[in-house]
Amino acid sequence: MSEVYAARRERLRERCSAGGSATALISRPANVRYLSGAAPEGAVLLLGIDQDVLVCTAPLDDQHADGRPDDAVRVHALSGPAGDAAVAAAGLAAAQGAESLAVEEHHLTVARHRALCSVAPRLRLGDLGGAVEQLRVVKDEEEIALLRIGAEIVDQALSELLESILVGRTERHLALELERRLVDHGADGPAFTTSVAAGPNSGRRGHRPTDRRVEEGDFLSVCLGATYRGYRCEIGRTFVIGTSPADWQIELYDLVFAAQRAGRQALAPGAAYRDVDRAARQVLDYAGYGSGLSALTGHGVGLEIDEDPQLAPAAMGKLDACVPVTVEPGVHLPGRGGVRIDDTLVVRSEADGGPELLTITTKELLAL
Amino acid sequence: MSEVYAARRERLRERCSAGGSATALISRPANVRYLSGAAPEGAVLLLGIDQDVLVCTAPLDDQHADGRPDDAVRVHALSGPAGDAAVAAAGLAAAQGAESLAVEEHHLTVARHRALCSVAPRLRLGDLGGAVEQLRVVKDEEEIALLRIGAEIVDQALSELLESILVGRTERHLALELERRLVDHGADGPAFTTSVAAGPNSGRRGHRPTDRRVEEGDFLSVCLGATYRGYRCEIGRTFVIGTSPADWQIELYDLVFAAQRAGRQALAPGAAYRDVDRAARQVLDYAGYGSGLSALTGHGVGLEIDEDPQLAPAAMGKLDACVPVTVEPGVHLPGRGGVRIDDTLVVRSEADGGPELLTITTKELLAL
Repeated sequence: MSEVYAARRERLRERCSAGGSATALISRPANVRYLSGAAPEGAVLLLGIDQDVLVCTAPLDDQHADGRPDDAVRVHALSGPAGDAAVAAAGLAAAQGAESLAVEEHHLTVARHRALCSVAPRLRLGDLGGAVEQLRVVKDEEEIALLRIGAEIVDQALSELLESILVGRTERHLALELERRLVDHGADGPAFTTSVAAGPNSGRRGHRPTDRRVEEGDFLSVCLGATYRGYRCEIGRTFVIGTSPADWQIELYDLVFAAQRAGRQALAPGAAYRDVDRAARQVLDYAGYGSGLSALTGHGVGLEIDEDPQLAPAAMGKLDACVPVTVEPGVHLPGRGGVRIDDTLVVRSEADGGPELLTITTKELLAL
Repeated sequence: MSEVYAARRERLRERCSAGGSATALISRPANVRYLSGAAPEGAVLLLGIDQDVLVCTAPLDDQHADGRPDDAVRVHALSGPAGDAAVAAAGLAAAQGAESLAVEEHHLTVARHRALCSVAPRLRLGDLGGAVEQLRVVKDEEEIALLRIGAEIVDQALSELLESILVGRTERHLALELERRLVDHGADGPAFTTSVAAGPNSGRRGHRPTDRRVEEGDFLSVCLGATYRGYRCEIGRTFVIGTSPADWQIELYDLVFAAQRAGRQALAPGAAYRDVDRAARQVLDYAGYGSGLSALTGHGVGLEIDEDPQLAPAAMGKLDACVPVTVEPGVHLPGRGGVRIDDTLVVRSEADGGPELLTITTKELLAL
């Protein structure tokens, strides 16, 4: 793996040089991990003039490192009481003779930025912007393989839940049970707070589980994700509790399913983000649900659960091959509930078989 | 409760005025919640000239609000795709005729700060610093009552775990079971990632559970916390697995227990933070364990699990009555394991009975 990280850092270094800065300070944890293989809490990565340094706030042995650092990166642990790794890294850059340092202005706070300025007053601070996030958008096959394992884990956890008795149990309990099953099947942990939404709560994006119990006749929508070796994927499904769904439930389900399918089918290298969003959104819009929809239809996944790109009406840009995204339209009717259907897929060319579906749990409307 | 939030905002407004700014923008979620009663994701609070406004990125009904906003606060939801509430709030402040706005420079990123400047170029941006964090240090009796309930929950979850069979189970499973029990007993959720550390992992601060199974003869250290209505407390205990602890285990346990007791006994209104730290630390130091100790012996708890004050060698300041803190010294011997003992207590005067212990699980060395 070491050469993978070195190659990533090399690509970033080229971008930095093009932007006029020989050195860069990476502070956003997922970016640190992407470039160095590890992201201990509070650590930053210095892309230095003659050496790349992972600056940690404590010795690596003493803390959860969230991965293992690439051998080609020097690990420098601050001694003494909790210091700021970014400030120390700016000092190192200055000591290496750097004149300018690109920082992640979208991650560093104003106060930390000021501390950097004062520890290395001669260093010209620039903005790295989202350069690392952009590198992260297209995944290599190793990264996709990790996402694929994560997707198998969520499929398995979900299928086991469906075999158990649901009526009478609370949203909270079902969410905890799903999270336990994720870990049972080898996940590092949930990729985000598992959402279980019953009855009137169903269909709400990001609903936090409550003590509402599952009842006969409910819609039950579930959204969960697994982290596997740092990579995060997600799945969302909606079920009906009891033997016979009501007509409005079948209609709403079919509609959201059609929207989600339209979104999936729009995934292709070269497709504009906004066109994927529109493909799904217009199905719901035509049916009169346009006003209450989420701001986005899907998003990238990887080391974070919510990465670039955003599949949204005003998003600029086009999909590439090997970009994993979610497609997750939903409708929530206040007081009644609703439907969300969410998959993680990888964009692939038609020659490669079209979009690769990672989360393969059925999307038929199951009555449980 | 409404008058509580209004009084908090009034105290902050006085501080702001003293600092030369009539308006303030609060962006750190725990601070937003402390002052308004709720902290929907991405929301900020504007302490305005004629009105206080909670600016949310989506309608309140559509998201988990993490509390309910005080009626005296106007709720303003951004319409359209995901915008930045801070930028919108700066615009509102300018529209109210404000000339200056104090922001939380330790929370706002450089990029957001720049966006504020460009949306309201005439607004003079100042630094609010940690003013809200300072207000949060001393708790009122309602806040302490919530912490007390949280502590009962962690005590209960832990006592149930101790009644179950532990040998052969993994750290991960025990951690998940503890988290399930927290929720069973009414917690909103865990206050932080539950730490279960067996054998050579025991005694490590913040150890993330692994697949290591509990074995006969192990030390088992457990650290868990509950969030109850937003308030977070924690407990840490170390046990020995099997009938007869080894001599080194008894000695190490007694030592850490003595250090923890010394720390607890040093808690009093007027005691310097560093003196509380020293009381515990010197016990371990004298025994030769000084070099490997954590940077702090304890910390405040409340709406966040790691609040001011820090009980550490270089910390400046003195304890007040009604400040809840942890006292959590520990020793970890690489390759062998170790001991941590952690309580949440509230500082009280001697007249009020001295430090109030919230987490009451026994600190005898239990052999399980």
